[in-house]
Parts: sequence; C-alpha cells; structure tokens
Amino acid sequence: MTESEAERGSAYPPISEQLDDVEAAREEGRRKMDWAAQHMPILEAVREEFVDDQPFEGERIGMAMHVEAKTAMLVETLAEGGAEVAVTGCNPLSTHDDVSAALDAHESITSYAKRGVDDEEYYDAIEAVIAHEPTITVDDGMDLVAAIHEDYPELIDGIVGGAEETTTGVHRLRAMDDDDALEYPVFAVNDTPMKRLFDNVHGTGESSLASIAMTTNLSWAGKNVVVAGFGYCGKGVAKKAAGQNANVIVTEVEPRRALEAHMEGYEVMPMDEAAEVGDVFLTTTGNRDVIVEEHFEKMDDGVLLANAGHFDIEIDLDALEDLAVDRYEARDGVEAYEMEDGRRLNVIAEGRLVNLAAPISLGHPVEVMDQSFGIQAVCVREMLENGDEYEPGVHEVPDELDREIAEIKLEAEGVEYDSLTDTQREYMDSWDHGT
Amino acid sequence: MTESEAERGSAYPPISEQLDDVEAAREEGRRKMDWAAQHMPILEAVREEFVDDQPFEGERIGMAMHVEAKTAMLVETLAEGGAEVAVTGCNPLSTHDDVSAALDAHESITSYAKRGVDDEEYYDAIEAVIAHEPTITVDDGMDLVAAIHEDYPELIDGIVGGAEETTTGVHRLRAMDDDDALEYPVFAVNDTPMKRLFDNVHGTGESSLASIAMTTNLSWAGKNVVVAGFGYCGKGVAKKAAGQNANVIVTEVEPRRALEAHMEGYEVMPMDEAAEVGDVFLTTTGNRDVIVEEHFEKMDDGVLLANAGHFDIEIDLDALEDLAVDRYEARDGVEAYEMEDGRRLNVIAEGRLVNLAAPISLGHPVEVMDQSFGIQAVCVREMLENGDEYEPGVHEVPDELDREIAEIKLEAEGVEYDSLTDTQREYMDSWDHGT
Amino acid sequence: MTESEAERGSAYPPISEQLDDVEAAREEGRRKMDWAAQHMPILEAVREEFVDDQPFEGERIGMAMHVEAKTAMLVETLAEGGAEVAVTGCNPLSTHDDVSAALDAHESITSYAKRGVDDEEYYDAIEAVIAHEPTITVDDGMDLVAAIHEDYPELIDGIVGGAEETTTGVHRLRAMDDDDALEYPVFAVNDTPMKRLFDNVHGTGESSLASIAMTTNLSWAGKNVVVAGFGYCGKGVAKKAAGQNANVIVTEVEPRRALEAHMEGYEVMPMDEAAEVGDVFLTTTGNRDVIVEEHFEKMDDGVLLANAGHFDIEIDLDALEDLAVDRYEARDGVEAYEMEDGRRLNVIAEGRLVNLAAPISLGHPVEVMDQSFGIQAVCVREMLENGDEYEPGVHEVPDELDREIAEIKLEAEGVEYDSLTDTQREYMDSWDHGT
Amino acid sequence: MTESEAERGSAYPPISEQLDDVEAAREEGRRKMDWAAQHMPILEAVREEFVDDQPFEGERIGMAMHVEAKTAMLVETLAEGGAEVAVTGCNPLSTHDDVSAALDAHESITSYAKRGVDDEEYYDAIEAVIAHEPTITVDDGMDLVAAIHEDYPELIDGIVGGAEETTTGVHRLRAMDDDDALEYPVFAVNDTPMKRLFDNVHGTGESSLASIAMTTNLSWAGKNVVVAGFGYCGKGVAKKAAGQNANVIVTEVEPRRALEAHMEGYEVMPMDEAAEVGDVFLTTTGNRDVIVEEHFEKMDDGVLLANAGHFDIEIDLDALEDLAVDRYEARDGVEAYEMEDGRRLNVIAEGRLVNLAAPISLGHPVEVMDQSFGIQAVCVREMLENGDEYEPGVHEVPDELDREIAEIKLEAEGVEYDSLTDTQREYMDSWDHGT
Repeated sequence: MTESEAERGSAYPPISEQLDDVEAAREEGRRKMDWAAQHMPILEAVREEFVDDQPFEGERIGMAMHVEAKTAMLVETLAEGGAEVAVTGCNPLSTHDDVSAALDAHESITSYAKRGVDDEEYYDAIEAVIAHEPTITVDDGMDLVAAIHEDYPELIDGIVGGAEETTTGVHRLRAMDDDDALEYPVFAVNDTPMKRLFDNVHGTGESSLASIAMTTNLSWAGKNVVVAGFGYCGKGVAKKAAGQNANVIVTEVEPRRALEAHMEGYEVMPMDEAAEVGDVFLTTTGNRDVIVEEHFEKMDDGVLLANAGHFDIEIDLDALEDLAVDRYEARDGVEAYEMEDGRRLNVIAEGRLVNLAAPISLGHPVEVMDQSFGIQAVCVREMLENGDEYEPGVHEVPDELDREIAEIKLEAEGVEYDSLTDTQREYMDSWDHGT
Repeated sequence: MTESEAERGSAYPPISEQLDDVEAAREEGRRKMDWAAQHMPILEAVREEFVDDQPFEGERIGMAMHVEAKTAMLVETLAEGGAEVAVTGCNPLSTHDDVSAALDAHESITSYAKRGVDDEEYYDAIEAVIAHEPTITVDDGMDLVAAIHEDYPELIDGIVGGAEETTTGVHRLRAMDDDDALEYPVFAVNDTPMKRLFDNVHGTGESSLASIAMTTNLSWAGKNVVVAGFGYCGKGVAKKAAGQNANVIVTEVEPRRALEAHMEGYEVMPMDEAAEVGDVFLTTTGNRDVIVEEHFEKMDDGVLLANAGHFDIEIDLDALEDLAVDRYEARDGVEAYEMEDGRRLNVIAEGRLVNLAAPISLGHPVEVMDQSFGIQAVCVREMLENGDEYEPGVHEVPDELDREIAEIKLEAEGVEYDSLTDTQREYMDSWDHGT
Repeated sequence: MTESEAERGSAYPPISEQLDDVEAAREEGRRKMDWAAQHMPILEAVREEFVDDQPFEGERIGMAMHVEAKTAMLVETLAEGGAEVAVTGCNPLSTHDDVSAALDAHESITSYAKRGVDDEEYYDAIEAVIAHEPTITVDDGMDLVAAIHEDYPELIDGIVGGAEETTTGVHRLRAMDDDDALEYPVFAVNDTPMKRLFDNVHGTGESSLASIAMTTNLSWAGKNVVVAGFGYCGKGVAKKAAGQNANVIVTEVEPRRALEAHMEGYEVMPMDEAAEVGDVFLTTTGNRDVIVEEHFEKMDDGVLLANAGHFDIEIDLDALEDLAVDRYEARDGVEAYEMEDGRRLNVIAEGRLVNLAAPISLGHPVEVMDQSFGIQAVCVREMLENGDEYEPGVHEVPDELDREIAEIKLEAEGVEYDSLTDTQREYMDSWDHGT
Repeated sequence: MTESEAERGSAYPPISEQLDDVEAAREEGRRKMDWAAQHMPILEAVREEFVDDQPFEGERIGMAMHVEAKTAMLVETLAEGGAEVAVTGCNPLSTHDDVSAALDAHESITSYAKRGVDDEEYYDAIEAVIAHEPTITVDDGMDLVAAIHEDYPELIDGIVGGAEETTTGVHRLRAMDDDDALEYPVFAVNDTPMKRLFDNVHGTGESSLASIAMTTNLSWAGKNVVVAGFGYCGKGVAKKAAGQNANVIVTEVEPRRALEAHMEGYEVMPMDEAAEVGDVFLTTTGNRDVIVEEHFEKMDDGVLLANAGHFDIEIDLDALEDLAVDRYEARDGVEAYEMEDGRRLNVIAEGRLVNLAAPISLGHPVEVMDQSFGIQAVCVREMLENGDEYEPGVHEVPDELDREIAEIKLEAEGVEYDSLTDTQREYMDSWDHGT
C-alpha cells in the first residue's frame, strides 16, 4: 500500500473483513461463479488466451460494477491476465456478498462491494478502489471516472484508459467529453453492435420481465404494458412483453423512435394517456421524471411501476410519497403506495433497476453478459496494447474486436455460417457493374 | 370429531400444530393472500355472492390442492360460502407453510398441508382430510377421489360430488369412469375452454419459463428449446418460448398435433433427434418416460431438463442416476448429473412440476388461477344446487358456468364487447338464406 | 341423360359450350392444375389409392364448389376414383373459367361453373348439376343440399350422403337438422381439427391478407386492423396481421372468445369504438350486419372494408350506398364510397369473400386446400363404404379419417414424430398411479 | 433541346410516342396515382410546401427509378416544385407503362420508362434522360451517376448533386468515392434510419412475401424459408415470414449478423446445408452468386427461388440453365427448371427483384414509399438550398431532414408522443449526477 492509499479510502475494509462467516460466503459465491462459468464460453476462450499471454502484468485495474456471479467472471479473467484488480459495486442493491467474498479470496483481487451499504459507505468503497491507484478503470455508470476526475485528478496521468458498460454512463461521458473535461480515453463498450443488441435488447428484456413476474406472481397475458422509451432497452422490453401476449404501449420523445414503435404495431401515446390505461409501467429512458405526479393521479388501482433504465430517478417516488396516504410492503420487493381514494400503486424494487434490485432478480442472463464482458475484456487488452493511439475522450470499440467476440460465440454455439468468395468480395468492392 | 375420524388419519395434526412460530407464519401467509386477492377479481365477485347466499351451509369440503396464496383464496371463498373445509397439499414440494397456517387460522378451515413431507406423511395428511368425511371433494390430481374409492368406500354415499383441476387427473378419472369404477359425479374442470386456454396455455407457459430463467439465470434467446408434447400446456410453453426468441422444437406422438406444430412454424422431430440439438428440454405430456436413457446419451454438456407436465415421471431420473458418475447441486434447485465423458445434464426441481417445485417458483400467475378457481367455485355451487342431475362419472362443466366466469372477468378488466342483435341471432338460427 | 334430367336444368350448358376459345382455356386451366398438383401431396396419395380401388364406380357426385385449380384436383380425384362428376360454382365471382373448361374436358366430368353469371344463371347451373341425379353431394355453402331439399325432394331417396366444406354451411345444416329437415347424412368436414386449424386459421389468414395487400398496394405495418369475430378464421386473420406488424383490434359477441382475444394481447372493443380507430376492417363472423350505418358514420377517410367470412352480408353495403354521395372504382377491386363530408370508405371485392373474389386473389393456398380436400375425398369414400351406419343428419368426420390425412401429410413433408411405447400407452390408459 | 441533346440519346422517344392508346394509358396511370396519393400523406404535405415555395425553379432533375404509381408521386412533387424532370426506369421489368404515360402528360415531365425494353433500349433511355442535362440526379441503383461519370463527364460541372435510393447503389457509390471517382455530392438516402427501417424492413418484407404468395398460391405456414443475408432487407423478410408461421433459416457471411439472427431464434447455417432443407429461398444480400450450382444440386423438388436484393445476379441462373434438362413456364412469373432426376426448381420473376418484377407485384407498399420519397424530396431541396456545403462524395442525409419526415408522418397518422421537459433536457446534457 502506498502512502496515498493510506490517505484515501483505504480505511474502508474489503468484504472479507465485513462478513461473519466468510468461508461459507466464499463457497456459495464460488458455486454461483462455477454455474456462470459453465455458460460463458466467450469469456472462457478469452481467459485461456489471457492466461497464456499475461497482457495485464503489472497493471492495476479499478472496477465499479454490479458484483454478482457473471461480472465476477470478468473480474477473474482480468486478474488471471496478470492484473491487480480492485472492485466495488455500482449500485448499493445489486451486490451479492457471497460472490464479492469469493472474488476477494483471489490473491490478485480486492473486493469492497457489499449489499445494502448507505451513501457514505458506497462512496467510501469507491474511494477504496481508487486508493489502489488504478491504471485502468472499468465502469458501469461512470462512478470511477467521475470520482477520479472530481476528487483525484492527480491520478489521471497514470491511467492508460477505461471502459464504460452502460448507455447512461456513455451518455454522460460524451457530455463530459464535449466539455473537454474527460482527460483519458474511455471505450464506449455500450455502443458496440454486440453489446447493444444482445445485452440491451435480449438481456434487459428477458430479465426485467422474469424478475417482475417472479416478484409479483402476475401474468403478462392481456396486460397493458407501458414501455417508456424505445431505445435498445425499450425495444427489448417491448418485444419480450409482446412475446408474452401483453398489449404493449410505447411512450417516446424522439419522433423517429415513436414512428418505429408505431410501425412495429405497438400503440404509441403520451404518458399522460398511457397512465390511464396501463397495468404495468416500465421505464427504460435513462432520463429523469418520466412518470410523475400527474401520471400517478390517473393510474388504476393495482398497477405495477418498475424501472429498467439506469438510475432510480425515472419514477418520481418523492411525488408519489407526497400523494400517498399510506405506504407498506405488499410483498417482498413491492411497496404499495395507497392514494386517498383507495387506489394502490405498487412500486417494484424502489424504482431501482428492476432486474438487479428486485428481491428475485439475477441481473442479465449469463450468456448475454458473456458477450458483453467478452468485449470488455478485449477492450481492456486493446487499451493496454494500443493505448497511445487513443486520445483522451470517448472512443468507439474498434470494429474488429466486436467482430472477434461474435466469431468466438458462434464457434462456441456450433453455429456455422458462410464466407465471401473472392468473386463476391471483389463484387462488393467494385462499382462498375451494370444491370 | 366423529368416531370414524378418530380411526382414520385424525392423528395427523394440522399445520398450526407443526410450526414453531405459527403467528409469524400466519401473518406472512395472510400478506401473500392479500396480494393475491388484489389481483383475483373473479373470485372476489364470486365470494361476495357466496357470502350473501351461503350456498354451502352444512357441507364439508375436502380439498387436495397446491396450497399457496392463490389456492388459498379458493379455499376461503368456499369456507365463506358456509362450508367446513379441510385441505392438504397435492404435491410435497408445492406447499407454502405460511399460507397453510393462515388458512388453518380460519374458523371453518383445517389445513394439513406442509412442505417437504415424506410419502407417509403425505398420505396421512390426505387421510386426515378424508377423516372430516367430506360431502364434496376438490382435487388437483385426483388423490382424494382415488384414496376414497380405494380405502374409504363407505364414505361415497355421503358425497354429493367433486371437481378435478388437472389434465392428468381428468385423464385418470375418465379411465376410472370407463371401468365403471367412479362412484360419484366429478366435474372435469380442466376441460373447460376457460381453464384450458388460460391456465394451461398462458399460466403454465409463462410461469414455467420465468421459473427456469430465475432458477438458472440463463436466457431464452437463441436457445434450442425442446417442448415434449403439443397439448395445451405444450402450446403455451412453445408460444411463450418463441416469444422470448428461442428456436422451438416440438416432439409429439399424435400426428395431428405434430402437424399443427409444424404448421405453426416449429420444428418437429422425434426426441431421439431433438436430444442431439436441444439446449433446454421441457416435458408437458402427462405421460411417463418421455426423456430416457437413449436421449441422455446424446445430449450436450450443460443442457437443462425440466418438467411442466404433472408427475415427476416424464424424465427418467433413475436411468439418469445410473448413467451418471457424479451428481451435485449446481445451483439451488438445479441438480447436475455428470456423465462419464464429462457432460453435465442439469435437472431442475428434481423433474417435478417446475413452476411449483423450483426454489424460485410461484405456481401459476394470480390472474390465471383466478379464472381457474372461479370455475371451481361455481362448479362446487352447481354440484350442490343440482347434484341430483349428475350421475356418477366424469362431467363436463356446464357451458353457462364457463361463460359466466368469462363475463365476470371481462367486466372486471373493463373490456367491452358486442352483443348479437335480434336480426343477427335470428340469422344464426336460420338456414334458409341463399347466396 | 335421363328423362328427368331433360326436365330439370339440363338446358343450361356446360362451360365448354359457353366459351369462345375452349381449347386455349383448357390448356391454361390444365397448367394451373398442374401447378396445384405439384403442391398437393395428400390428394396425390389419395388419388393413387382411388385409381387402384375405384371406390366410386357407378356413383354420380354433384358438387357446388369454388371452381379453381385446387378444387379441380378434388374433382378429378373423385372422377378418377370411378365417379361421374357434375360440378358448378358456389359463388358467382370465384370461378376460373379456364379451370372449369379443363375439368369439363375430362370424360367423367361435366362442369357448369362460369365466372360472373347472374342470379338466374347461378341457380340454373345448380339445377343442371342436380339434373345428373347425384348419389353424393359435395357442397361449399350447402347450395346443393338446400336446392335438393326444397325443390327436388324426390331425389333424396337415391342419395347416399354428402359433405359440406364451410363453417357457415355446417352451421345452417345443423339448424336444418335441428328442425328434422335434413333427410340424408352429411359430413361436417368443416368441423374436423385438420380443416379448422389449417384451412380456417392459416388458409383464410394468409390468403385474405395477401389479396388485400396486392389489391391495394398498402402495408400492414402500423395499421389498426379490426377483425370482427374471433372464431378460427378470425384467429387466423388476427395472428397473421399481427405477424405483419399490424395493431390488431378484435370485436366479438361471445364473452369467452372476447376474453381469449384479450389474453392474446389484442385490444377488444365493440365495433362502435373500433369504427373510430380502425384503418382496415375484416369481417369473419359468418353473421350478417356486422358493420352497419352507425359504424360507417364514424370511420376515417381512406379505410378499407373487406369480408373474410362467407356471404357478402357482413358489411351492410345497402346502408353504405345510401349514405354515399358518390361511388367509383378507385382501383381494380376497390369501390370507393364517398361520404358527404368527403371521407372515402373503400370496399374491397364488393364485400364478398375477399380471398376468392378480389381481382388479385387465388383462394386458399394450395397446401391448405390439399389438406381440406384430402379429408373431403376420404369422407366421400367413407360415405359410400359405410353409408348405412350414418342416419340422416349432420355427422362429424370420423376421427380416424382426420388422423389418416395428418399422417399422409407428415410423411409427404418428411416430418418424423414419436410413437407411444407400450409402457406409455398402458400408463395413459391406467388410473392407479400415485404421486 | 440543346445541340448536345441532339447528339446524345435524344433519338429515344418518350413513352407517349411509343404507346398505341396513349390516352387510355394516361387515364389508367392517373387512377393508379390517385390511389397512391390518397395514402401518401408525407409527400402531400411536402408537395404543398413545394408548390408554395417553388424551390426547384430553373432546375433540371434527371431520374432513373422504378416507374410506377408511388414513384410517380415523387416525380410530380419535384415537378410541381418548379423543376423540369426527365425520368426513365431503373429495371426493365418494373415500369408500369400507364403510369409512365400519365407522368409524360405533365408539362414539366418527360418519361422514357417502358416495360420490357431490351438492354440497348434500356441504356438509350438513360441517355435520353442525360440528354436533358440534369442539374440534379435521383437514382435507384446509381445508373445515372455511373453513366454520367463514364460517358458524359462534361456534364458534371453543371450538376449540383444527387440522391441515391438503394443499399446496393449506395454501396457502389461509396466504393467509387473511396477511389476518388465520385465527382459530385450524392445523398445516401438509403442510409437514413427512416429509409432503412421502414422501406427495407417493412416494405421489402411485406411486399416480397405477398408477391410470392400471390404469384404461386402457396402458403408460408410450416415452410422452411431460407433468407440469404440478414441486413435490413433480410431482417424484414425473416420477420414477416416468421409472422406467417414459416420456419426461418438465415445464411450470412458477417459473424455479428449471423449471431444476431441466431439470437432472434432463427436457425443459422451455411447455404450448403440450407439448400438441403429449404422450401423457399429468398436472397437479400446485394451480392452475386449467393445460390449457385452446388446448391441447386441439393435442393428438393418443387422449391421456390426468388430475389429480394437488387440485381438479378444473386441466383446463378446460368448455372441453373446448364444443369437443367428442361425449362418451362409453370405459372405466370414462375419458370420451372427441370433437373435430370426430375426435380423441378421454380424461379420466380427470372431472379429479378421479386416485389417489382413478378407478374403480381406492386413494389413497396404505398405508405412505405411515402416515407422514403418524402426523404428524397427534402434531400433534393437540401441539395439545392445548401449544395455548396457538400463536397463531392457520398453524404449522409442530415439528421434534421430525417426527423422532419418522421414528424410529418406521425402528425398525419394522428400519433401523439411526449416532449422532453426542460429539466429532462438539462439532465440528458449533464454528467454530474451521482447514484
């Protein structure tokens, strides 16, 4: 530990020092990770390569991620590639303590992630990670990038680069970049075709709906499901809900997305109208105040409200609290807000990311995260190998890395596909053919 | 208690005498039931009618059902209609002890259902119900009907009739009826359009898939999902899996169902071939030995095996056990059988009904059971009101009862529809119109 | 020709005597039939059997069907099985004269079907068929059965039985049967699982939508498509329209069907409300006056109105005519009715069965009719072989015939499926297995 | 006419001079255009603006497009905006002579498009358009751009810019641009979100399938439909085919697209394997030699082959011709190639773009082209208004134009949507918010 570590958050202890029965937790966490490993062929292939090549030797990787079994496989993969890794959570409710403990047991990994920490502890843990003086940052919501730029600018010189997982994080990084405030290169992992299509569409879609179904024991068939936002996440939620025989209603602010939803056959209307007919409301906008007081006032008794976006600000719970005459836990993970007229509006997982924060939730499916983390892994490798080529700012993932991951996955699935013949390649490159 | 009760299973105690903290259990059970009540408008409407009319005054109703929050609403509805009700489970793994305790707290209800009982206790509990000398039986798998006919034929004279919930139960009752061995009338609730379409298709489909997703943290997108059987349950599972972007493969033994699946766009093949390509296998046949040794031998490493039919005999676990060199819990509710060549076949919930027996499972969605139990409730009323009209044997639910439930549901959902005009009704009844 | 033939409609000439260039017509008709034959493996298998067995030797079969290439294969199959066949159309607009001519060229077939005949000619042609004194009738809309019972009761004694193809025809036959007015046995071919599911669902669904798309050059994506009736035809139209990204709205009069549509995720509302939001209206009820004056008054400019039911009475064109200030052909097969306020309501194919009567329409897809006519063919064989067993009245198609056709089809498609083992068959037949 | 016109293709006559009954053709063409106009609200709104503003006064627009009713509305819109327009076809089989004649009747439009011209006439017509010395080119397949660059480079100085409609055209333009060979700016209309999603996905998908259904009278249900290429067109064809209950098989050369198709639940395999199981083959790659000799050898009797890409080189008809022992017209628009072993492979529309070249085909649905042509129209306006800002080369359509069209469409459809509040806009622009 360096001196500066002592000054920073090093007072905050790793998870292993915070649990009563750390051995039992490690064993349970390891069992969860083994299951994930069984279904993450991409990361397995990448790990094998890393173990051989040790690309991260001498590097320190700081991570703020949802710490559960799947992410743990990325953490381990990076550690086995030679890095010292320090990791904490990126959401107080998404950490699995047992997985965190299993990670912390690895000789090259220190994990500070703990479920249910308060705001102060949350940021202490982030500072504890920063105290390791990372040379690479891996973020899910840009907490590390933000904290380093705001409070530890002296570390920036030593940082090769970073990777950011989420839509929201990338959005904010771009805004930061536009202000010339981003001082090291960060890969916008979220923006790759692989990440967007599989993680956002299939991952968010399937896991959010399954979490809600298992948390509420309610059915989708015949329900009016209002999906706020028709970005990749919204498309996934809408498609999967329709695939469970829900009647999907979409709200949007961007006319082309609104039109796209309309042309898919969904009903499109303002939230003001949707509030009157919806049975379930799912926000996926990445924006704030999507469902607010005027909407709560119009909703039916018994509606469900959940967020599949990022932060817990899409549903205005303060306004709901003000409107309510009573509030109680109707079911694990379901808070009922009772209105003066007797209507009960049921908020799931406190409006936090439902597929991570609901009591019955597991985050994204294993296979989907395998793809997403596969890209993360090769992005970190790329940053180290060719970091000089990247100016400070947000960078798209190089196309060949994204393609590499797809090839690994298809091979693992046993899916074969065609190759261009020379004649075809030549044809695609030429422009001098007539009708 | 009558003398005969003393002789029979009356030694077996109600749940309240078996739990340590019965008060806490009752409170938790009641909270679960309140949530269900909020989403069961049909049963609520029926209950209001029953409370006013007391149709079951003086009757004793014996029930063997999956005892959880939704079923509990049926039990209460019957009790509030004036009956003394005795209830036990119809599957050792599907009982929620807290709900059982909450039911047992009702002055007109005795509940013997307890999770995890062994075979002897299971049948003792059934006998304890029979010891109440029911005048009506309500079954989910015909355990009560079978036990009464086999061991307590002297009670038959006092029994007005019964109702049976499941496909499998009705199938066996019909076989019994064909042998002239069924000595009182039983409504085949399973066979109503309402029950089949909503419970089997939507209920089994959605809840089985959500249970598996939440038990395994795996995704459906791109998976080869093999659905054994294309009856109503199989159709539901296939439709909902396709709606999650799975590639669905159907196995069948009946050519018209096979053809129907083929015309829906699913792949149809024998299990022998499906075993080679499937990622997930779901049995819904109601038959035995659907997946057996020769199939296990061909499966890939990491496949999932689950049952959404009725009994745990669709997947031949004895054969799998014999083939395996190791067997361990890979995850809560997932038993991995390791083959000699290293392949791991993962069996979910011990091959029992997956949407009830998996660790993360809640049975059918609330709304679906509301429909199903609404029919049960009016069937029991019908049996008492017009029991003389029904000969011993299996009876279809009278069409007007089924229709009554649909009308109640549509009204509760606020869905309006058209009525025939007199001219239209006349036209439909006539045959003398030309081109 | 017998004397009685001379007295009846025998004055009406076969198609060959009505066409200018009968040779060209026959050649074109034969080419159409050859294409159909290439895609009708069921009928081909049945025909091979009939050619060998000559089951209809000495019989006279009277038919009133949509005379186009596919039906022609059934007509030929029956003729090649040894029958003398006389055939006419069952709808003035659905006949293909060239196919009619090609049939009439067969030495055992006389075809009277001609497109565009007026009412008098239409019934003359039916009488011409009856003049052949059929021993078997094959109907598509019960025109032959009705005409024989009303006007030629003396023929009934000589009739072994009949087969009826359509929902509407069967409905009317049942009404006739209920009045004890049906004096020979008729198979309700429409009611078989094979016919209903494949013909009504897939056939009507696909062909109606493709006809409308090709007649109007409009898209389904994003359209509000109102489907009146949620029977088998309505389900098919709704499913296929949703599969083209339409937003489907269902109107119904039967609460269980309304609920079923609601649970599928479709919007359900009365026609009164649907009229205000629909872009396309498709009637499939088999009833009359489904879309009437009050609905026309609420519709948007540019809506499409079409009928996929049976008769042209589902849309009240008289009322529409009365409301309109102008009426003109907006496009081949599209009649625009202009309202006083400038709105144009576009009626396709004069409200007749759209997949047969639209200018770009071909009736049901070949493969679907192959199944349907395969059943017709074996039903006619059954009526002759076991006619004594059938009392006058409507009869369901024996299950084994329906199953036989499914087996033939699966074999032709190369689709394999499982068989029950003895143990499984025994299990399904038993009722004495416990949990 | 200038002198240079006289030297160029001016010898080639407009359509009006080539038809026998030009008045009848014009009337019929106008009726088709009126129907299109009724369903093209975007172009109607744009036209109203152009009529007022006359943005194209003094300009000469040269167009090579599929000349049918919808395109005609774009041609008229540009003409009514003040331009002199000369137009010809971009495919010998896609022209509707009556529409061409109706256009030619407009005082500011000269149309050379004629169906069924041979190669020489085709290029003569293109030269005739070029002879008008266009200041703007609008292409569908870059025929005009190519011809001008190759043969009339002297015109380039006078050209403000162009617009290109298709994927294939844009692909070739980019290749040309990469070689620095493109000497004026061209908008890649194909690449806009609006064009890609609606035209390629919905338009190509729906119209190709409906054309094939109506040309063959075959069904999609239960068919193995092989879609070659999973770009936007392929996605549309796959989605719509699955929506008609086909079993969709995708072939691809790009691993991410292959993986995307796999994750959607489609089967992915090389064409070599697909050839053995497919019932229908649809090419959408924009490349050549997608289905070749080795594939033909493996196909089943009766398969259908069609192209929904661009040029007629995706299916290698020369190789098929060589393999065949016979070849005949099985049906209008269907050429059967008979193999030595008796198998018949049926090629639709000579392997040309099926939704334009099949006998029953209408090109894209009206509404879809309304969107596509709306963008074309505002792109041409943009090129004139701000042409100086665009360097020679391929340019993306400015985002605000694309968005403008979406807004017009939503308003026309009566679809309302939300707007960002100030707080939300500020939030989206900021990056300094914590968890």
